Amino acid sequence: MITTNEIKFIKSLQQKKFRRQHGLFVAEGAKLVEDILGSNLKISAIYHTASWNNYPKAKNFPFTQVSKKEMGRISSLSTPSEVIALGNIPIKKLDVSTLKGSLSLMLDTVQDPGNMGTIIRLADWFGITNIVCSPTSADAFAPKVIQATMGAIARVSIYYANLEGVISEANILKIPTYGTFLNGNNLYTSNLTPTGIIVMGNEGYGISQGLENLINHKLTIPNFSNRKNTSESLNVAMATAIICSEFKRKVTFP
Amino acid sequence: MITTNEIKFIKSLQQKKFRRQHGLFVAEGAKLVEDILGSNLKISAIYHTASWNNYPKAKNFPFTQVSKKEMGRISSLSTPSEVIALGNIPIKKLDVSTLKGSLSLMLDTVQDPGNMGTIIRLADWFGITNIVCSPTSADAFAPKVIQATMGAIARVSIYYANLEGVISEANILKIPTYGTFLNGNNLYTSNLTPTGIIVMGNEGYGISQGLENLINHKLTIPNFSNRKNTSESLNVAMATAIICSEFKRKVTFP
Repeated sequence: MITTNEIKFIKSLQQKKFRRQHGLFVAEGAKLVEDILGSNLKISAIYHTASWNNYPKAKNFPFTQVSKKEMGRISSLSTPSEVIALGNIPIKKLDVSTLKGSLSLMLDTVQDPGNMGTIIRLADWFGITNIVCSPTSADAFAPKVIQATMGAIARVSIYYANLEGVISEANILKIPTYGTFLNGNNLYTSNLTPTGIIVMGNEGYGISQGLENLINHKLTIPNFSNRKNTSESLNVAMATAIICSEFKRKVTFP
Repeated sequence: MITTNEIKFIKSLQQKKFRRQHGLFVAEGAKLVEDILGSNLKISAIYHTASWNNYPKAKNFPFTQVSKKEMGRISSLSTPSEVIALGNIPIKKLDVSTLKGSLSLMLDTVQDPGNMGTIIRLADWFGITNIVCSPTSADAFAPKVIQATMGAIARVSIYYANLEGVISEANILKIPTYGTFLNGNNLYTSNLTPTGIIVMGNEGYGISQGLENLINHKLTIPNFSNRKNTSESLNVAMATAIICSEFKRKVTFP
């Protein structure tokens, strides 16, 4: 059983305003909820239909069995799944010095939820733990983003911060900073360090000027086509895939 | 001016059935139409609002000026653009021997239109001219795919064919064939040839068993995470980006 007020409350979390107000996000689907149950993320409530059989792991959480019809009312998916969890949005204050020993990503106004989710999934694949986003980037805890991460949201830490401030501090701490530009050095022939911050820019405008001025290393993914009128750019998620791959390859399989 | 019948006709091309019946696809947006005008693709009709000013290039095509309201009625976008072109779907019969001298992609039931479009865009970036798709893959001339290619549909040749037949013939012609599997050899430490066919599989099930048996070289993109419960797979478009990048890098910037 679920009350009308609960339904309203859960649906309200589709909106960023209410997610921030209550510090909660919605995760839908058995695989995703299981990933979150196995992670450091905290869960506030679980709503599930009779078919969901993951009680043991969830025994410490307040869970509510609902009918399929009720699940349809709280779900944001066209085909409702058998379980929805309300998770606590982690409140994380970034200590830039923790970025010193590893490779991190920074997103400067990456606005498309699909791109954001895909980049979080890529970070997980490439063993990148920290992503620092500008406040103008998509909300990592929006339902569309969470679904696109395919569970990686449970394993990657997302920070929102003033990027110029973070890069300035990184420069003082001698953390190498990389960014992708149209006029940078060839990614494949550049020296890439095993640790550092890789900055990816907005879908249309790239990295903002203020941030560009602070970045140590400008990189470009060369276009291999000799056709005229070839594509002018790669989608930001594709570019992230290629860059992370090359950073990790150079260090691990030189 | 545009008649009600024309509007119906253009809207019908949103459906694969009618695209096949009439051999026409719909391309929407100034950049996309311009890319197609500069390509080998043939255009049957152009509908544009007064603001579109690309007449000179289009002078050989039957074009019709329409009001913004009429454009709204024929557009499939939430924000209609200033121009829509009806293009002829190229009828291409694949001669496998033409794949011998270059690097090609093969898609085994890649079903998501966004993935298909992104892969076509990647092919363009990496100078790959030919993509061979199973008939069970998404239609490359669906509006969503065409929009996602960002114009690359004008520069990459798409074939639909029986993939097992094509790979069998490739084997006879000694064209190297590569596929991505969970249990393949490390992409980064494998010998990769400058020419060959790279097979990418379905979003959920990967490459079909029949095709797997015919592929020479099995590759895997290693997971760099040492977290337990890490992502089990990469999205097929991401995997394509990483694989194409590594093939081109190894040959061009070894």
